[in-house]
Amino acid sequence: MVTVARVQSLWVIVPAGGAGTRLWPLSRAGAPKFLLDLTGAGRTLLQQTWDRLEPLAGADQMLVVTGQAHAAAVADQLPKLPADHLLAEPSARDSAAAIGLAAAVVAVQQPDAVVGSFAADHLIADQAAFAEAVRQAVLTAEQGYVVTLGIEPTYAATGFGYIHTGEVLGIEGAPDAHQVLQFVEKPDAVTAAGYLTAGGYRWNAGMFVVRAQVLLDQLAAHRPALHAGLLEIAAAWRTPHQQEVLERVWPTLEKVAIDYAVAEPAAAAGRVAVVPADLGWHDIGDFAALAPLVARSYPTGLGRELRVLGDHDQVSATDAGGLVVATGGRRVVVLGLDDVVVVDTPDAVLVTSRESAQQVKAVVDALRAAGRTDLL
Amino acid sequence: MVTVARVQSLWVIVPAGGAGTRLWPLSRAGAPKFLLDLTGAGRTLLQQTWDRLEPLAGADQMLVVTGQAHAAAVADQLPKLPADHLLAEPSARDSAAAIGLAAAVVAVQQPDAVVGSFAADHLIADQAAFAEAVRQAVLTAEQGYVVTLGIEPTYAATGFGYIHTGEVLGIEGAPDAHQVLQFVEKPDAVTAAGYLTAGGYRWNAGMFVVRAQVLLDQLAAHRPALHAGLLEIAAAWRTPHQQEVLERVWPTLEKVAIDYAVAEPAAAAGRVAVVPADLGWHDIGDFAALAPLVARSYPTGLGRELRVLGDHDQVSATDAGGLVVATGGRRVVVLGLDDVVVVDTPDAVLVTSRESAQQVKAVVDALRAAGRTDLL
Repeated sequence: MVTVARVQSLWVIVPAGGAGTRLWPLSRAGAPKFLLDLTGAGRTLLQQTWDRLEPLAGADQMLVVTGQAHAAAVADQLPKLPADHLLAEPSARDSAAAIGLAAAVVAVQQPDAVVGSFAADHLIADQAAFAEAVRQAVLTAEQGYVVTLGIEPTYAATGFGYIHTGEVLGIEGAPDAHQVLQFVEKPDAVTAAGYLTAGGYRWNAGMFVVRAQVLLDQLAAHRPALHAGLLEIAAAWRTPHQQEVLERVWPTLEKVAIDYAVAEPAAAAGRVAVVPADLGWHDIGDFAALAPLVARSYPTGLGRELRVLGDHDQVSATDAGGLVVATGGRRVVVLGLDDVVVVDTPDAVLVTSRESAQQVKAVVDALRAAGRTDLL
Repeated sequence: MVTVARVQSLWVIVPAGGAGTRLWPLSRAGAPKFLLDLTGAGRTLLQQTWDRLEPLAGADQMLVVTGQAHAAAVADQLPKLPADHLLAEPSARDSAAAIGLAAAVVAVQQPDAVVGSFAADHLIADQAAFAEAVRQAVLTAEQGYVVTLGIEPTYAATGFGYIHTGEVLGIEGAPDAHQVLQFVEKPDAVTAAGYLTAGGYRWNAGMFVVRAQVLLDQLAAHRPALHAGLLEIAAAWRTPHQQEVLERVWPTLEKVAIDYAVAEPAAAAGRVAVVPADLGWHDIGDFAALAPLVARSYPTGLGRELRVLGDHDQVSATDAGGLVVATGGRRVVVLGLDDVVVVDTPDAVLVTSRESAQQVKAVVDALRAAGRTDLL
C-alpha cells in the first residue's frame, strides 16, 4: 500500500462512460468496462480509479459523472461516494458537457478549486508515480494552466493522440511540468515510429487537471451556449429545481469533446502544460491488450501460458496459450492453441486470436445491425 | 434414395454402445455418439444405421443391443423396432456377450438365420455398395464362413486393425469374397504405410456376417461357459422368466470382445472370409474426423471455410476455418482462427484445433478423475 498525501485544493471528476465494445461479450451496454474487474484484482476498474484518487482528494471531493442507466451500479460499487456527488446524465452529451457540469458544480461550492478529470476505465500500475504527477499537475494548474498527464510511450501506438512537449515551465514544486507545443491526432504507424525516435512526444491519455474557473472561462470563450447551460444547471444544483432544470437544459447542450472545447484552444493560446509520467498506464483497448494484465497465469505445457479471468476453477487447458475469460458458469476447456482468446459468458462465447482481437468491434456492429440488442 | 432388395435370411444385430469420448462435450455418457446427429443430416447415427439396414433385413428382422440407460432413447429414435427386439443389457459385458445373446435369441426363432452385426455409430456414404457387399457377405456366410466387410484403406491409418486378404473363394453370387489370411492389430505408422504399399490389406471396421449357428458353435468351442450362459438366457427369452434369468446369468458372463472370442479363432481355422468394400465408411473418431463430414459449410473470408453443426443461426464467423458445434443455445462468435474446433454445449465449451482433437479423451479422463461426473 502506497501512502500518499492529500492534495487539498484538488477535486476529482471521474467521467464513467464508454462501452468497451472491443471487449464484447464481457463488456456489455448494461455492464460496461468500467463496472468490471478486468484483471482479477478483486476491484472493478471504477473501484481501482477510486482507490488511486480518493487518498489524494478525499471522498468528499470526489465526483462521478455517468449515464442514468449506470448510476445505481456506480453508487453500489462506491459506497463512500457522497450521494450528491454522483451526477447522472439524462442522456450522453459527450465529455465537455459531462466534465463541464461537474466543474461548474464544484466551482459553486469552492470557487478556487482545482479539478482533475480521470477516466473510470484506465489501469495505472504505479500509484506513487501517479500521485506525484497529480501533485505537480495541481501546482501547475494553480498557475492557470490546463495540465495534462503525458504518458511515456512504450511503443509506436496508433490508437492514441500524442502531446508534443516543449520547454520546462520552471514552476516551483513542479519540476517536471513542461509547456505543450501541440496536441496531435492519432498518427499512422510511420508517424508514430517517428515520434518515438524524435522523443518529446507523449501519449494523451485524456487525464487533465485545471482550475475549475479556468475550465469554465475557456468554455465561456469558445462554447458560450454550452457554458451558459452548464451554469444554469449548476445554479439549480442541490435546490428543489435541480431535476427540472437538468431535464430541461441538458438535452439542449452541444455535444463536443472536452479536447476540442477546452484543451486545443488553450494549447493554441500557450496555456497548456504537461507533466510527463511513467505510470504503467493501460487503457485496455481490447482482449490482446487485456491478456498480459490479467493476474492469474498458468503454465499449460509446450512452454505456453494461459491467463485466466473469472471462474478459474472451471477452466482446464493443455498446451494452450492466451486468455480465457470464464464468466458463463460453465466448464471451459482449451487444448493445443496458442495466442487464443476465449470469452465465455452466459449468452455468448467468443473465440478469437490476440491478432484478431480488434475485429470484435465489427461483431458488435453486426449484432446491432441485426437487431440483436439482447446481446449488446 | 437407393432401392435395395431384401436379403431374406438376414437378421441384423446393431450393438449400440460406446461413449465417443473424443467427441466430448458433444457426446456424453447420457447422450453417446450413436444417439446424436453428428453431421447435420437430420438423423442420428443410430437412425442412419437403421435406414441403411432396415431395407435389407426388414424391421421385423432387426435387433438392437444397448445398455439399459439408453434403451428408452433407442426405442424413441427407432419407432419401427419391435419392442422385443430391443435387448437392454443390465451391465456392459463387452461385445461377445452382447452380440452372442442377440444371435442366440435369433437362432431360437430361426435356426438357419444369418446374422449381421453393424455398429450403431458408423457413417456409410455409399448405400448401394454397402447393400451389395452385405448381399455377397450373406451368400458367403451361408457357406459357413464368418464374413467381414473389409474397408478399402484411404490412408495409412494407425487407429484400426487390418485384414490381410488371401485368394478369391469363388462362391457363386459372391465374386468379391476372399479368404482372410489373418487379422492384424492396429499397426504403427510405418507398418500401416507398408500395408498400403503392399495392397491386399483392408481396414477391419468390425462389421461381420455369419450364420447364427456358426457363431454359437464358435463360442461353444472357444468360450463354453459364455456359450452356456447365453443359451440359458435365450431359452428364457419371451417367457415370464426372461428378466429373472437375464439378471441372474448376465453378470456371470465373461467380458470378451467378439473379435477374440469368434473371429480370430475362426481365422486361424481358415473359416473367415472378407468382402472388400469401398463404402465411404467413417467411424468419426474425433472432431478432426467429424469436420469434413458436417453438411453445412460457410465461407468466412481469407479463403477459409467453417463447418457448422447445430444451431447455425447462432454462429457468426470472420476469417475462421474449422468446425463449430453450436448446441448451447448461445451466440458463438469465431474470429480469425483456422483449423479451430469450438464445441458449445449448455454446461461446457471446448476450444481446440483439428490437430489436438485426439487429446479430448485426456480431458474426459481428467474430469472423471476429478469426480466431475456431472460433465461426463
